[in-house]
Amino acid sequence: MIILGVDPGLTRCGVGVIEAGAHRRLSFIHVDVVRSSPDQSQDLRLLAVYEGLSEKIERFAPDAVSIERVFAQDNRNTVLGTAQAAGMAMLAAAQRGIPVALHTPTESKLAITGNGKAEKAQVERMVARILGLNEPPKPADAADALAVAICHALRPQGALQGGEREQHLTPAQRQWAMAAQRSRRGGSGRNADRGM
Amino acid sequence: MIILGVDPGLTRCGVGVIEAGAHRRLSFIHVDVVRSSPDQSQDLRLLAVYEGLSEKIERFAPDAVSIERVFAQDNRNTVLGTAQAAGMAMLAAAQRGIPVALHTPTESKLAITGNGKAEKAQVERMVARILGLNEPPKPADAADALAVAICHALRPQGALQGGEREQHLTPAQRQWAMAAQRSRRGGSGRNADRGM
Repeated sequence: MIILGVDPGLTRCGVGVIEAGAHRRLSFIHVDVVRSSPDQSQDLRLLAVYEGLSEKIERFAPDAVSIERVFAQDNRNTVLGTAQAAGMAMLAAAQRGIPVALHTPTESKLAITGNGKAEKAQVERMVARILGLNEPPKPADAADALAVAICHALRPQGALQGGEREQHLTPAQRQWAMAAQRSRRGGSGRNADRGM
Repeated sequence: MIILGVDPGLTRCGVGVIEAGAHRRLSFIHVDVVRSSPDQSQDLRLLAVYEGLSEKIERFAPDAVSIERVFAQDNRNTVLGTAQAAGMAMLAAAQRGIPVALHTPTESKLAITGNGKAEKAQVERMVARILGLNEPPKPADAADALAVAICHALRPQGALQGGEREQHLTPAQRQWAMAAQRSRRGGSGRNADRGM
């Protein structure tokens, strides 16, 4: 299963592609940043992001597109552009019939490090280890795109399918499932499902 | 000159089309609402909005697309979806090389009634009068899409071209130009250019 992760942004939009094989074995395929120039008008910037993301989706033909969720409480100066960049990713996937999943940064950190509040450097080290890379992926800010792809690959099935498989989860997976459930219920601050 | 106005929204996205002829004579062409179902996932909703708007743009071949500007301070429960719907309109226009303009609700009210804080009913009556309609356009919430199209048609050229024509403006147009300038300088609250 090929998963394409997106860390949405208007100026820099991270893209990370992984393959999830048998026994949750994950391998690295691609990481890059799609850019648009702040000198251009908003419509041309969105067109650049849309075309860049569409090209990646065409090239890697993912089975799923996993996008970092945007929250209305995020940085006011950039949140609308970030949400619109996420919208470009959703549209490009939907036009090709590819399922879209949204995961919060907390879900990604929890899935990758077992700690939803892990530091950025720790997440980058674990992303490299999980993917069998000798060093953290470059560019550094694209590591978040790989992280949200990995998050989707490692998500406990129980969290998505009513909990019937939760008895087989590791403690970290169970913690993840509980956080994801809280998130869907809308009960835990920034993790609440008030994003897009 | 054909102008297609968009009042962005995810559940209901207003579309209004007008023709601006000689001597700023405006005539009504079309008004409608593009919808997406809250029961669908976000990616499929954005696809529906994108396809609906693209169909309108194909059908009416506007010379400009005028979109109501979204602000990060707007209703937290809907602002991200609204911004993404605006993004779909911008993308659909940019893909066809059609210029996009963003206007604030205050700019629209000022252009149409001479009062940036006019009540909704007054704006609707003036939209009908300007377009020579016997009654306010239906559906009512699509009147905002006509308003932002009219706003673009009536915008004082001076406000966009360095003020060299401002001496020819009516008092209402001069007031509009000053508000637009303040808005671009980022100095007046919700009108500040912090939207997308």
